Amino acid sequence: MHERKITIAPSIMCADLCNLEKSVKELEQAGVDTLHIDLIDGYFSPSMPLGIDTVKQLRKATEMNFDVHIMAKENEFFIQEMIKIGVQHISFHQESSTHIDRHIQLIKKHGIGVGVALNPATPLSVLDYCLPECDTVLLMLINPGFATDKNEKQVSYAAKKVGDLYRLIQQLKLHTRIEVDGRVSFESIPDLVRAGAEILVAGSTSLFRPGHSLTENKTLMDRYILAGLGEEGIVHGELL
Amino acid sequence: MHERKITIAPSIMCADLCNLEKSVKELEQAGVDTLHIDLIDGYFSPSMPLGIDTVKQLRKATEMNFDVHIMAKENEFFIQEMIKIGVQHISFHQESSTHIDRHIQLIKKHGIGVGVALNPATPLSVLDYCLPECDTVLLMLINPGFATDKNEKQVSYAAKKVGDLYRLIQQLKLHTRIEVDGRVSFESIPDLVRAGAEILVAGSTSLFRPGHSLTENKTLMDRYILAGLGEEGIVHGELL
Amino acid sequence: MHERKITIAPSIMCADLCNLEKSVKELEQAGVDTLHIDLIDGYFSPSMPLGIDTVKQLRKATEMNFDVHIMAKENEFFIQEMIKIGVQHISFHQESSTHIDRHIQLIKKHGIGVGVALNPATPLSVLDYCLPECDTVLLMLINPGFATDKNEKQVSYAAKKVGDLYRLIQQLKLHTRIEVDGRVSFESIPDLVRAGAEILVAGSTSLFRPGHSLTENKTLMDRYILAGLGEEGIVHGELL
Amino acid sequence: MHERKITIAPSIMCADLCNLEKSVKELEQAGVDTLHIDLIDGYFSPSMPLGIDTVKQLRKATEMNFDVHIMAKENEFFIQEMIKIGVQHISFHQESSTHIDRHIQLIKKHGIGVGVALNPATPLSVLDYCLPECDTVLLMLINPGFATDKNEKQVSYAAKKVGDLYRLIQQLKLHTRIEVDGRVSFESIPDLVRAGAEILVAGSTSLFRPGHSLTENKTLMDRYILAGLGEEGIVHGELL
Amino acid sequence: MHERKITIAPSIMCADLCNLEKSVKELEQAGVDTLHIDLIDGYFSPSMPLGIDTVKQLRKATEMNFDVHIMAKENEFFIQEMIKIGVQHISFHQESSTHIDRHIQLIKKHGIGVGVALNPATPLSVLDYCLPECDTVLLMLINPGFATDKNEKQVSYAAKKVGDLYRLIQQLKLHTRIEVDGRVSFESIPDLVRAGAEILVAGSTSLFRPGHSLTENKTLMDRYILAGLGEEGIVHGELL
Amino acid sequence: MHERKITIAPSIMCADLCNLEKSVKELEQAGVDTLHIDLIDGYFSPSMPLGIDTVKQLRKATEMNFDVHIMAKENEFFIQEMIKIGVQHISFHQESSTHIDRHIQLIKKHGIGVGVALNPATPLSVLDYCLPECDTVLLMLINPGFATDKNEKQVSYAAKKVGDLYRLIQQLKLHTRIEVDGRVSFESIPDLVRAGAEILVAGSTSLFRPGHSLTENKTLMDRYILAGLGEEGIVHGELL
Repeated sequence: MHERKITIAPSIMCADLCNLEKSVKELEQAGVDTLHIDLIDGYFSPSMPLGIDTVKQLRKATEMNFDVHIMAKENEFFIQEMIKIGVQHISFHQESSTHIDRHIQLIKKHGIGVGVALNPATPLSVLDYCLPECDTVLLMLINPGFATDKNEKQVSYAAKKVGDLYRLIQQLKLHTRIEVDGRVSFESIPDLVRAGAEILVAGSTSLFRPGHSLTENKTLMDRYILAGLGEEGIVHGELL
Repeated sequence: MHERKITIAPSIMCADLCNLEKSVKELEQAGVDTLHIDLIDGYFSPSMPLGIDTVKQLRKATEMNFDVHIMAKENEFFIQEMIKIGVQHISFHQESSTHIDRHIQLIKKHGIGVGVALNPATPLSVLDYCLPECDTVLLMLINPGFATDKNEKQVSYAAKKVGDLYRLIQQLKLHTRIEVDGRVSFESIPDLVRAGAEILVAGSTSLFRPGHSLTENKTLMDRYILAGLGEEGIVHGELL
Repeated sequence: MHERKITIAPSIMCADLCNLEKSVKELEQAGVDTLHIDLIDGYFSPSMPLGIDTVKQLRKATEMNFDVHIMAKENEFFIQEMIKIGVQHISFHQESSTHIDRHIQLIKKHGIGVGVALNPATPLSVLDYCLPECDTVLLMLINPGFATDKNEKQVSYAAKKVGDLYRLIQQLKLHTRIEVDGRVSFESIPDLVRAGAEILVAGSTSLFRPGHSLTENKTLMDRYILAGLGEEGIVHGELL
Repeated sequence: MHERKITIAPSIMCADLCNLEKSVKELEQAGVDTLHIDLIDGYFSPSMPLGIDTVKQLRKATEMNFDVHIMAKENEFFIQEMIKIGVQHISFHQESSTHIDRHIQLIKKHGIGVGVALNPATPLSVLDYCLPECDTVLLMLINPGFATDKNEKQVSYAAKKVGDLYRLIQQLKLHTRIEVDGRVSFESIPDLVRAGAEILVAGSTSLFRPGHSLTENKTLMDRYILAGLGEEGIVHGELL
Repeated sequence: MHERKITIAPSIMCADLCNLEKSVKELEQAGVDTLHIDLIDGYFSPSMPLGIDTVKQLRKATEMNFDVHIMAKENEFFIQEMIKIGVQHISFHQESSTHIDRHIQLIKKHGIGVGVALNPATPLSVLDYCLPECDTVLLMLINPGFATDKNEKQVSYAAKKVGDLYRLIQQLKLHTRIEVDGRVSFESIPDLVRAGAEILVAGSTSLFRPGHSLTENKTLMDRYILAGLGEEGIVHGELL
Repeated sequence: MHERKITIAPSIMCADLCNLEKSVKELEQAGVDTLHIDLIDGYFSPSMPLGIDTVKQLRKATEMNFDVHIMAKENEFFIQEMIKIGVQHISFHQESSTHIDRHIQLIKKHGIGVGVALNPATPLSVLDYCLPECDTVLLMLINPGFATDKNEKQVSYAAKKVGDLYRLIQQLKLHTRIEVDGRVSFESIPDLVRAGAEILVAGSTSLFRPGHSLTENKTLMDRYILAGLGEEGIVHGELL
């Protein structure tokens, strides 16, 4: 088993979209080096948080790693645009992709990290042949693009699915990392990390928890992560 | 003939998308009260400049009039989202709309100004019955969503089409205002205004001309507008 | 000018869909010989009132003329199904049809009456070449498929559009009949008939007016029609 | 193993669509409490048996359980309409659904039973994560929407697939019930029930067998069901 | 009025597709210098006569002018492919094109002739603004892609539409040439040419008339053309 | 285990499309009896090598077996066209097919061989229920329709996937044959055949290797096949 490094990837949707540069600087200062960017086209899901030109301009304003999550019907168009902009990682959804292998190779040949994203109900068997080609697999733990429905909870089988995938990766002796997205809260982090998650998309239930500074939230998040790794005590979900 | 008031509507695509709040404040200070917002879905045209959440957050940061130009296949979805956000004006394209009258009424019953947008080659006859229902008609003078192709020029029939529409409006004794969008440069403003344009979407060839301040550009733009109204001298396109 | 015969075509959507046979018999007894059948696919408009199998079974239960109004994206599929069932008249929408002439010929060669249907905002110029091929033109006076929105009113330009089309037909010396659909109420009938409408799709604001028998409503409707033809007195919309 | 209760769900497509109220009353009198309603949009399959308004009016005419089977491309639209009408159970197809978990939760939060429907060739692995969320799984045993092709037979692997799913459900200790749809004939019932089917969509090869009364057919159907449960003797498919 | 030159453009669909090189050589020898190539995608119309690779290989085998007629939903894709291959003229359909001006400019900037194609029922008003940008306008005289239906006749308004367009072109003092496609038979040629047609797509009712050599048919076709130009006698459709 | 017979199926895309008849005769003379025909619609993949009419005419010019590989969104349309033409085998893609069982039965009832085609990343679990119904399974070893990208290599998991499927077929005691398509080169043939491939789609890296005659290439291909079957010596990929 490779040594586990956990990455916190704050969602740009929780940033201040009117002052993105400032918002991103604050994230940098809080010790975060990766930005999770949701690109939704309004068709894959009824949502379109931000646009391509915003990403393009932001690229010039920060050195952070851009971890782009495409939720669209026309994956190829969005992949090509992200390649041109110069991002570090691109995940696209299996559910809207006829040519998964094609997209993976297209991304890889530009030296960009690649991930396949799966909706909650999508089985892991869709990864049977492409898993070894993936740097990451992104597991959606809520339904993508409906996040504004604040009552929507993480799916009940979240940790189970992470665990199933983790075992599969171990079995195949791969280095694929598991990314989790959707209500990744302080409370759920230990279980998810324990199950095998290594990239945590952070939103309003962790890093952007209202009423606390980014640094405070980051510090707490780190402790929950350590708890998940078994390096910090936790009892009944309460940090000691 | 109603007295003509010309509105300058700077395109948000020319603003600093990483510092939108600051960028919009500068526009306000330059004496501009309307912001032209392009919403493209990647399907109507291969482009997606900015997203719905950006508009939503921006709504809270400024009192400017939001003049939203939807370029999308699913007009109803985007119209509904813009109504929720609280914008002042919504234009949608005839070319992607089966239910034009429906969309017009939907927008109007929320007390929002409504416009029908036409691509360059679209004839004015598509307005035969809905023109009296429109507050504005937006005439695209370049092909929407391909603006990044910097070589694309304003269509040769730009001023002619504005003039044709203006005469139609006068004939029907309507108060519909003509909005023009696409390479509305200093040089083309007098002709467009003379022909009947009253809302000018301003971009990198006028208000955002590189190397000059917004205020400088605004002042010059005002003079070109006055030239179009016949209130300032102009000879062979040169202001006196 | 050919002598004008006005046809009342009650909308099946106002019938009792759980007792269609009985409902249709009552219409027959009220002296109506034509049934207007709305086929909507849920995509052209967000509505799907009734299905193909319902029409198929109804065909065996009555001798009435079936005047089918297809509101769908795949006109050819629905046209073929209606031909198989044996209906008397088929209208399809211009807005969703790439091959208008093809559909017209397909219907005609089966000896079935054919009409082109236009949404409210659609200009008459789309009929420039196919009008002589049409037995009827169906003018939608509300937005099709949104009828359940009870506040939706007939478009303000309803009678004007009917009049424009009627003059066009007269000018070309054609026998095409104008069908009107959407809030064709007692009050609006005289104006519509006067303007040139000859087939009136009747719903809850006329033939199916609640609180009155079909026969009562039919009698009143006939009088409003006569008023439209100038054969019965009417003052300020009130029958004398 | 929970005690097995078999439900007979007659297909509305076999009812008299011109006299639905009467037809449904007869079903009630024959001791049936569930009505299977097929909603097809013409795109998922080339068929559109009945419409939404028919279901809406029928809802007021009977207390039967409405077991709605959506075969459509836009599941969300049809689910929302069925929720408004007030049905008891909604199944939608996996093959046309990107957001399976989303649809399941949407249905469940309105207190409505939920099922995922699978076309014949669809593997059970698509249920890997959502099965515990489902009240039922609907297995199509013929290709949906092509039922009018009277020569189409039940797929050869019908009972095998039911058995595979039943074992899966038992293994996971779930209470999910298996619904079978497509040529569920007297002859095939014992095998299907034995394999694990608990909801039988009944059509022209069982409950609506021509030349016999509903009550006769119902009685015979009950016996075949008992045979499947091992409570009635059967030899070589012949009841003793 | 510019001097009229009539071009014969044999349809590749009438050539021997298994021996294209030979077939094209025969056309060259018969004195024809233009080849009309129909590219249909199966979606615009239910037909797909030949493919892109066939055109690509054929390009290397002949110096003839390739006059490509795209009948497809995704015009941009096919236009780009034809540009790469190096054709002389590209027509695309207005009915499937949102960005007509865009496509025209794209084709023109590669030095390729450009035409807009119209289905039979499409009005000429769609050309209101783009006509001056077009080298040709292609008028379909039958419904495109249904040509295999041998009973389909040229639309009754064929010559009228050609005449209307010709007058419009003369009025605007343009040099746009009219191309006609669909059952352009010996018998219909004089009328079409007289009305203003200048490019004749030739198929099985003229140049490829069975039972005669290409040269014979070509000679006869030339005479019918001259009759249309008034340079050869014709009485009741019979050449003198 | 049934005795293994290996079929070479040259891809028509490598033939001389301007002299198809001659090209096909040469294949016949080289001892090949099967022609692999790729039908792509431009939507499933951005490619459209050849058309339906080309296949139709070719059908009359040769007795070879036509092994058609449909890569399209509307499988049913293309299947129906191929049935009319009279081909021997039809494969269609699982990824674009909602009604897999339906398509299989449709093809079978016309006495035509049937195969399901899978993109590289598609898991074998999609075959769980339909495998016994298939005469062949076509495994794409490159991404279909992107073959013109000459740098695209066979996927790394090609032989593994063939082997997995072969074991599955053996386990179920089926006679399904495995067809492989995509850079099936001399070098990769032994491994693919050893793993279980029995139909080899041959292109520019084997049968059409430039600089060698068809007969030379065929002879060499046969030897590599024998090596795969263990009947000819091979060491480190080099024939002895």
